[in-house]
Amino acid sequence: MSASENYLKQHKDRFLAELVEFLRIPSISSLSEHAADVGRAGEWVADRLRAAGMEEVCLLPSGGSPVVYGEWLHAPGRPTVLLYGHFDTQPVDPVDLWTDPPFEPVVRDGRVYARGASDDKGNMLIPILALESMLETEGVLPVNVKVFFEGEEEIGSPHLSSVIEQNRARLACDLVVSADGFQGDEDQPVLLLGFKGLCAVQIDVEGFRADLHSGVYGGTVQNPIHALARLLDSMRSAEGKVLVEGFYEDVVTPTPEERSQIAAVPFDEAAYREQLGVGELFGEPGYTTRERAWVRPTLEINGIWGGFQGEGVKTVTPKEAHAKITCRLVADQDPEKILQQLTSHIRRNAPPGVKVEVHPESATARPYFVPPDHPGNRAADAVLEEIYGRSPHHTRMGGTLPVCALLLDLLDVHTVTFAFGLDDENAHAPDEFFRLGSFERGQEAYRKLLKRLAQQDGLRG
Amino acid sequence: MSASENYLKQHKDRFLAELVEFLRIPSISSLSEHAADVGRAGEWVADRLRAAGMEEVCLLPSGGSPVVYGEWLHAPGRPTVLLYGHFDTQPVDPVDLWTDPPFEPVVRDGRVYARGASDDKGNMLIPILALESMLETEGVLPVNVKVFFEGEEEIGSPHLSSVIEQNRARLACDLVVSADGFQGDEDQPVLLLGFKGLCAVQIDVEGFRADLHSGVYGGTVQNPIHALARLLDSMRSAEGKVLVEGFYEDVVTPTPEERSQIAAVPFDEAAYREQLGVGELFGEPGYTTRERAWVRPTLEINGIWGGFQGEGVKTVTPKEAHAKITCRLVADQDPEKILQQLTSHIRRNAPPGVKVEVHPESATARPYFVPPDHPGNRAADAVLEEIYGRSPHHTRMGGTLPVCALLLDLLDVHTVTFAFGLDDENAHAPDEFFRLGSFERGQEAYRKLLKRLAQQDGLRG
Repeated sequence: MSASENYLKQHKDRFLAELVEFLRIPSISSLSEHAADVGRAGEWVADRLRAAGMEEVCLLPSGGSPVVYGEWLHAPGRPTVLLYGHFDTQPVDPVDLWTDPPFEPVVRDGRVYARGASDDKGNMLIPILALESMLETEGVLPVNVKVFFEGEEEIGSPHLSSVIEQNRARLACDLVVSADGFQGDEDQPVLLLGFKGLCAVQIDVEGFRADLHSGVYGGTVQNPIHALARLLDSMRSAEGKVLVEGFYEDVVTPTPEERSQIAAVPFDEAAYREQLGVGELFGEPGYTTRERAWVRPTLEINGIWGGFQGEGVKTVTPKEAHAKITCRLVADQDPEKILQQLTSHIRRNAPPGVKVEVHPESATARPYFVPPDHPGNRAADAVLEEIYGRSPHHTRMGGTLPVCALLLDLLDVHTVTFAFGLDDENAHAPDEFFRLGSFERGQEAYRKLLKRLAQQDGLRG
Repeated sequence: MSASENYLKQHKDRFLAELVEFLRIPSISSLSEHAADVGRAGEWVADRLRAAGMEEVCLLPSGGSPVVYGEWLHAPGRPTVLLYGHFDTQPVDPVDLWTDPPFEPVVRDGRVYARGASDDKGNMLIPILALESMLETEGVLPVNVKVFFEGEEEIGSPHLSSVIEQNRARLACDLVVSADGFQGDEDQPVLLLGFKGLCAVQIDVEGFRADLHSGVYGGTVQNPIHALARLLDSMRSAEGKVLVEGFYEDVVTPTPEERSQIAAVPFDEAAYREQLGVGELFGEPGYTTRERAWVRPTLEINGIWGGFQGEGVKTVTPKEAHAKITCRLVADQDPEKILQQLTSHIRRNAPPGVKVEVHPESATARPYFVPPDHPGNRAADAVLEEIYGRSPHHTRMGGTLPVCALLLDLLDVHTVTFAFGLDDENAHAPDEFFRLGSFERGQEAYRKLLKRLAQQDGLRG
């Protein structure tokens, strides 16, 4: 056993305690009342990087929540690797569906339960611990390392492009490795080749000056909820095809070869249904479930509200109704163009008798794809095969990682995702958890990856 | 000026102070946490009736909130009149749209602002004060009087039929006069001839065990909000016609004569739009706005909720979505039959991939109609003409007063509505208010009505 591998084992309990401490910070980026907590999580990360031995640790101002930067650049002639992750979390509602309070981490049955445990604090802490193990035992790292951890991933990284633009030289590197991503399951590794893009809108339907008595006024005025329901229904066919005009126009249809590669990745539909608790799956006709999740764009309603939500009956025709929508995009859809199409569709289909407003959210992301034979992927492939004893499936993901497309656009550098969460860990949902087995395996994997990248052909441009 | 008329003027300030005290009780019948407050309001009413000189005042148990009963039966040979009203209120949300807290009454510009001010506490107190004025000054009432004030009107009077059945003898009377109703405006009285019936359901759409990451799972499963939107949209045409099969089957179409009577009641559409703050009216094609409000049934969505309702973006596919619907019914629609049709429609149109449940609410009411030449209406007509100097328009109302149909069914007695709220007083909405002018005019009107009913031909069966 190498000294750094041994270090990781010896400090296992401390690392878990540190993760629990990190998870206690309610760093919800979408809620302004938690802005200070997001800042606090960033400070925690900066302190932890310094303790690990990273240098030049600082906060890069973004206009929103700052990015935590650090570096270790004492490997001349070796590649420079930028490590990415995020320390912000999703909101916690519906909070009553959590077994324990979301920011009071509980360790149970080899898992740590808390908001952010899997997405992404647990995964983000992993490379820091791997760096520490090598710096503490060997005094050096096998490659030059920069870290770049953000606090706005869960709101679509609205300030990331300006931070990257303002720090081009500082962030220059040969490869990005993302600690945000997924694995297949506990036995089967995956290498993620693509992420979906994102855009989002809020629809506000305004009816009247005040809520109305549904008996006195009902039937004489447009009901804002009914208008909103009609508008939402107009966006999707009964079978699940998006009906927004032009929506599929720029979608790159998967080739027969890509489709057969996707079909080669095992998919247990019964287990998937069982995991989610649904009786049947549903989605755009003409594509498999995997294809819908990985290579087809989607339009999802994330929330809706209006009128009376309490117990019993309130005979009211409500003054207004609201909905939130996000679209997940695939190559070569452009989020700005989709936002325009969505806005036009909503304007064209706005029912009479109400005012309908569309508010695009600042969160947008371009879709991303990295070739499977990229040198970073070849190194990650090899390490995953060594750790799991199986070669990874090459997959894509319906999730969005805006940083990948941004770094490719702005710094001309590809991102390899190297993360250890599994898709049953309730990311974005109540009772999120992270497996402690993944936490430890990930530390060892990062140690091996950095060593392998030091010798990887084709990495230095 | 008669002694009782003088009494009303002399005690004006005390009566207003009492109304304010009554309005302070947050007697919201739809919320179980306010059950004790509804009870407290009932006790307040019972005390007030005793103070007014009514006898045998008691609470009639209903299985829910008790009915307040009282009587004065010392006018042998004269008709017996049952006075009706309710002391429960609607909920107050959205509470942030109120200028002042809804249960902290404010008197301003000749109006008292509070939840329940117009519907129905202000109107309900009026006949009590009229009774007191006569009992205090004359020692007698011109007719036999029973009072019957309930605390569950705003939830559709679910226990009223059993209370009436259990108290048939006690409640026997020649005429019911309801202190719940409306007037036209400050100058023009109306006599209400009909109320709509009511039935209500909650729809629960269940998707998954937990909220899902919209990127990872979006496009592979039915979105519960999208399913609900589709279901709601299926219930109504783009033009506003209800599409629930059989919905209009038992509707009595107004005769050409009835339609011309309705058209004779002045209606200022521009003022109506201005009052509500809407750009255009909307409703079932083929009928005027008045006809839609008075003689056509409606289906209104009262509330909807599901998923993320906060600030910003949460990329979630929510586990469930919910909506509340009420139908307002006209003669001869049967609420139970409509509930069955609604349930069948929802089952037939439930989108795939989700579980859809329909929960009928216990609140149901049959539609009600009283002939314009009923002796009670003739007396009310005359008093209103005397008070306002104009003969009343004969109208109907989109609102529901379950007690009317129940008393007609169970006691074979008609109800004349005699109330003084105006339809701009924000009943069921924020900033509900009642005009103090109406409060005083109503007391005098009730005094005159009781005297006139003592001589009214055709009233005693």
